[in-house]
Amino acid sequence: MKPDRDAPVGVFDSGVGGLTVAREIMRNLPSEKIVYFGDTARVPYGNKSRENIIRYSRQIIHFLLEQQVKAIVIACNTASAFALDEVRDEFGIPILGVIEPGARVAAQETKNKKVGVIGTEGTIGSGIHAAFLRSLDPEITVIGKACPLFVPLVEEGWLHDPVTMEVVARYLQEFKDRDADTLILGCTHYPLIRSTIREFMGEGVRLVNPAYETALELKEMLKRQDLLSTGSGQEEFPYRFYVSDLADKFKAFANSILPYDVEMTRKIDIEKY
Amino acid sequence: MKPDRDAPVGVFDSGVGGLTVAREIMRNLPSEKIVYFGDTARVPYGNKSRENIIRYSRQIIHFLLEQQVKAIVIACNTASAFALDEVRDEFGIPILGVIEPGARVAAQETKNKKVGVIGTEGTIGSGIHAAFLRSLDPEITVIGKACPLFVPLVEEGWLHDPVTMEVVARYLQEFKDRDADTLILGCTHYPLIRSTIREFMGEGVRLVNPAYETALELKEMLKRQDLLSTGSGQEEFPYRFYVSDLADKFKAFANSILPYDVEMTRKIDIEKY
Repeated sequence: MKPDRDAPVGVFDSGVGGLTVAREIMRNLPSEKIVYFGDTARVPYGNKSRENIIRYSRQIIHFLLEQQVKAIVIACNTASAFALDEVRDEFGIPILGVIEPGARVAAQETKNKKVGVIGTEGTIGSGIHAAFLRSLDPEITVIGKACPLFVPLVEEGWLHDPVTMEVVARYLQEFKDRDADTLILGCTHYPLIRSTIREFMGEGVRLVNPAYETALELKEMLKRQDLLSTGSGQEEFPYRFYVSDLADKFKAFANSILPYDVEMTRKIDIEKY
Repeated sequence: MKPDRDAPVGVFDSGVGGLTVAREIMRNLPSEKIVYFGDTARVPYGNKSRENIIRYSRQIIHFLLEQQVKAIVIACNTASAFALDEVRDEFGIPILGVIEPGARVAAQETKNKKVGVIGTEGTIGSGIHAAFLRSLDPEITVIGKACPLFVPLVEEGWLHDPVTMEVVARYLQEFKDRDADTLILGCTHYPLIRSTIREFMGEGVRLVNPAYETALELKEMLKRQDLLSTGSGQEEFPYRFYVSDLADKFKAFANSILPYDVEMTRKIDIEKY
């Protein structure tokens, strides 16, 4: 059965990071409704095992299907790296991740074929960007680096800060030394320190924001499958937010980064799914 | 039924941090056997809700009871803050936390009755140190501050580092400004950056390490209840380590901080308990 084109898009992440993806969907597909799930009880995913991430992702997809979504975006690089291939064809609706859209653009845009990738330990350890980039162009050299302090710095709100600048310099010097001309921001929190990263890396390096590229790819996919919302049937709350813990804290963070006032976040028991 | 005095002591934490408590028990009670559980699948606890922390703690206590421990140390400040009062009398064996031993020493040692406490958002938000310190001495002023970047800095291994020094200065300046003469390191990771904290705070401030004070309190309690190990019946593996995820990573960290070579860590499914 074909999904309802005016049904919402499901978006999930380990916590608040995926809101940068939701934000790009809101900006670029303003007619689409969104059901967002942030797994705040089990955040972060970046230092957890592949098998646990797959289990968590299946539970969340079951929850989103109950919300009758027409498509799902895994708005978390770690979950995209570990779970997308496992779940992609399992549920009868389209499921997108954030790895491939970013990697595709990076492969197109690099001139010297040296592409850097930054992300969590899980994402970088999986080697998935490298594998996908080389499948697109075997001549590309991929330089990956885990940056575990970026997420806590973003969550502390130190976005434009000397400490963050120093940590950026420490982590990213290697990309300068090795002359990468393209850098994939391979964790959904990182676009929030994009300007600090830009300041350190300079204007000559292309920074790829997979959140933006994923929103564009979602648009293409919905168009192709004739699933773009007609914009009719708009509800009072086109954007709904669910979490597995601490709904108020989530809401405060969401309100600080979304171009939209989050009215309501509801806590659910994700272990039941 | 009285527990077996040669049974092991159970110690648990959200992850690796509680190893600083296990280390003090190894140093100060060398005849005691230890079963350690690190909840690496659900780490960190510091930004999770009270109700989830209580649920996690009960699951872990069930697991430790299955290992036939004679007493349990909750080697995590957040779990001690949220769960100790709930579970203390529920299981028929003594259960200690890390909050009270540290707070007791701080109350004894402060001269100007201004005590600082640093910890996770959960621990500081709970206000438990303040409540307990004031129950010991109503004249004590308690200054609490959450330091969410300390744990990721420790886990990154940046123990003696200019970035860590700058973050320490940022978080702890308030204690200097307000003239605290005693500072409780209210998170089990923090003793690992004790020398950086010492450098910033100076020699005049008493730093209280609850890991050490808890080991001494455990010793007193076991003595009082006639449960100190006779030292006989030593097994080949007096220290056993269990985790809920990524056993190898845990083992590497454990080997870097314990005065002992960790032979084996085993992964279990804690959601089953």
